[in-house]
Amino acid sequence: MIPNSMHFNMIDFIEEKKLGRKNHPQKINEFVEFLVNDKIPDYQVSAWLMAVRLNGMDIDEITALTNAMAQSGAIFDLSEFKNTADKHSTGGVGDTTTLIVAPLVSAAGVTVVKFSGRSLDFTGGTLDKLESIPRFRTDLKPEEIIKQARKIGLVIAGTSSDMVPADKILYSLRDATCTVDSVPLIASSVMSKKIAGGAKNIVLDVKFGDGAFMCNFDDARELARIMVSIANNLGRNARAVLSSMDSPLGKSVGNALEVMEAINALKGNCADDLMELSLILASEMVSLARGHSDISSIKKELEILLKTGKALEKFEAMIKEQGGDVRVIDDYGVLPHASFRFSFNASMMGFIRKIKAREIGNLVRKLGGGRFKKDGVIDPSVGVSFFKKPGDEVSEGDRIVDVHYNKANEKDMIESALMSAIEIGGTKPERVELVREII
Amino acid sequence: MIPNSMHFNMIDFIEEKKLGRKNHPQKINEFVEFLVNDKIPDYQVSAWLMAVRLNGMDIDEITALTNAMAQSGAIFDLSEFKNTADKHSTGGVGDTTTLIVAPLVSAAGVTVVKFSGRSLDFTGGTLDKLESIPRFRTDLKPEEIIKQARKIGLVIAGTSSDMVPADKILYSLRDATCTVDSVPLIASSVMSKKIAGGAKNIVLDVKFGDGAFMCNFDDARELARIMVSIANNLGRNARAVLSSMDSPLGKSVGNALEVMEAINALKGNCADDLMELSLILASEMVSLARGHSDISSIKKELEILLKTGKALEKFEAMIKEQGGDVRVIDDYGVLPHASFRFSFNASMMGFIRKIKAREIGNLVRKLGGGRFKKDGVIDPSVGVSFFKKPGDEVSEGDRIVDVHYNKANEKDMIESALMSAIEIGGTKPERVELVREII
Repeated sequence: MIPNSMHFNMIDFIEEKKLGRKNHPQKINEFVEFLVNDKIPDYQVSAWLMAVRLNGMDIDEITALTNAMAQSGAIFDLSEFKNTADKHSTGGVGDTTTLIVAPLVSAAGVTVVKFSGRSLDFTGGTLDKLESIPRFRTDLKPEEIIKQARKIGLVIAGTSSDMVPADKILYSLRDATCTVDSVPLIASSVMSKKIAGGAKNIVLDVKFGDGAFMCNFDDARELARIMVSIANNLGRNARAVLSSMDSPLGKSVGNALEVMEAINALKGNCADDLMELSLILASEMVSLARGHSDISSIKKELEILLKTGKALEKFEAMIKEQGGDVRVIDDYGVLPHASFRFSFNASMMGFIRKIKAREIGNLVRKLGGGRFKKDGVIDPSVGVSFFKKPGDEVSEGDRIVDVHYNKANEKDMIESALMSAIEIGGTKPERVELVREII
Repeated sequence: MIPNSMHFNMIDFIEEKKLGRKNHPQKINEFVEFLVNDKIPDYQVSAWLMAVRLNGMDIDEITALTNAMAQSGAIFDLSEFKNTADKHSTGGVGDTTTLIVAPLVSAAGVTVVKFSGRSLDFTGGTLDKLESIPRFRTDLKPEEIIKQARKIGLVIAGTSSDMVPADKILYSLRDATCTVDSVPLIASSVMSKKIAGGAKNIVLDVKFGDGAFMCNFDDARELARIMVSIANNLGRNARAVLSSMDSPLGKSVGNALEVMEAINALKGNCADDLMELSLILASEMVSLARGHSDISSIKKELEILLKTGKALEKFEAMIKEQGGDVRVIDDYGVLPHASFRFSFNASMMGFIRKIKAREIGNLVRKLGGGRFKKDGVIDPSVGVSFFKKPGDEVSEGDRIVDVHYNKANEKDMIESALMSAIEIGGTKPERVELVREII
């Protein structure tokens, strides 16, 4: 397991990075080998992580780190499938796109095997959302994944415990040492999982704005460029979509609520912003997988797959294959519902000027819909449903949002959170471009 | 033990420093309390150390850290003594000054209670040097130290295990995480031990040049200014002497050899540079302790104490009190001697242009005279004796240096190390000022 690495010296490795020098790719490989073999004390790893956070890494180093992390565990082999595509979102509030995009792309004949996580975020990750469907299984074995991919061309599963062990070690230390917000470390963490997941074609939804991990567009763009470069350096095709996350995407935030929203979308009933972004992501995936770039004709094809119910059929097939209650497609009653509902109405006439994504995300997390700790339990039933979106005109008393919650004593907290998160003004706000750039 | 600190959050503390912000002094106190109570995982401490190494600390923070570290364990109380002085050297090659200065200052009526260490350096620390005297004890109990200080006004002892525990924890992590070379961390480590040692008046010998920890004069000056400021902020008097360490100080490098050199110096037989620096350090100590600054008259007084043998008497008294073999004063045969001696002679006529301190230091360390690991065992007998110093004229064949060693197979290594360390040229080198500045 440790070939040619008997001379790796962690002190020299830290010293180089401390002095702002380059860690040689071969040394990075050895570092990751030592790391997963538990041969480096945590305190040395964390000193190196802080040096990386403060002194950065160049694209050679980031590529080497990504590849070494991907190779640190099992690699998923999708080479038997002709067209495959994967997607990743850097995370936002109300980001339901995977549940729409994955079946849609699969319906277009592209095999989608997507490994998802349970991120430490405002709301649950894609796995948490899917698990609000009764009995839906995400802990699939490799052979189950391959079998299902052959059968229906669509799988969304959890990363298995033997994939990317180096990332698990580094991530838990980053979380405890304030080194999560490092572009090289974010990029290598995300991309190592995509590489290990076997995807040949990767579309990255890199979000910027108030509710995104990267508030600043330029930082998000830098991250996007680096992730695309890593993919290309490691022989994968990739595109990055830079999308705004100033207000929540779609009309629902919360796990079960977002599953309903996705099913509605697949039935043709969807908020404009969520559908716009879903179609862009899906058409980029299909375009990469097919190796041609006539996006507008692909988009038309995808719209037909939505209208004819083919995408919904794929979603239903996936639920069935993964053991979930397929009645959910027609009966949202099978999903968990919260005990209480609080409607928040406009206090004046005017226009919705802002719905602050971060504050809405924090509210849903406080209600139990997201995690504060890594092993936190998600309450799938809580969340927020919007009846108005930024730019909409309202009269006094118009219902703007419903909050679904389970503890009676949370009402005051909810009300004050919404008063802070939602801004009404006399003038219509300028429309914000949802997708600013595609790299 | 942990008053008012239930809300200390290490994540926030790391985050502040990562972002280049100030750690509030109260938070620094809480950090040190948590640290010594083993409430912070090593990996978080080391991430913070790297953030300090890369983002620095201001003088308020460094003062707070120094004080909190000093207060983290036992504080030595010297208040019963009217005049006291302490010294510290940042470490060099052939730095025998403490063994000359401490008895000399004590002979002038100033009580010297000096806690020394066993540094991880080219040669042993002061304790190691003294322990080359048979039976000399450095592990004195507090009551023994006070008793001896009352009786003879001179003690050189090891830091007790209950002093400055925070420094011990931080130092061992710094050593393992490449964060030793941080001016704020060096300054707070040194000064916390001086503060805990109870010294009211502190003279710092801050070395710069090839054989010093700080190669660069400006860095050494910065360190010196910071250490003096810390002392003043914490109610102590301090001066810093900035001394050159390009070539070894005096004519001996090695533990027993330096003890002999010190005894010779106290007998009036000393290399010019070693005596010059010793008199400057001693007179600054006496001047601080007496609260007046007529350095030149103090220097004359000290020269008389040397000539009349009063300083040597103090050294002898200390050896006797601390259980050492006092015959060493007249009979160097009681000291350990190495088995082999290699004489290195001039290969050409000319002038000694350089004797590179760092290379000589590394040679002595390789011979066993210094430590590579914290628990390394010192060989007190090995070392180097110079017959020529930089600026001296030599004829071909003149003896420049003897190397004392214990392993026959080291001869070739010694010869090649000396050929690299010693430069002979046709012109006399410019004289280097030994003390460049006193702060």
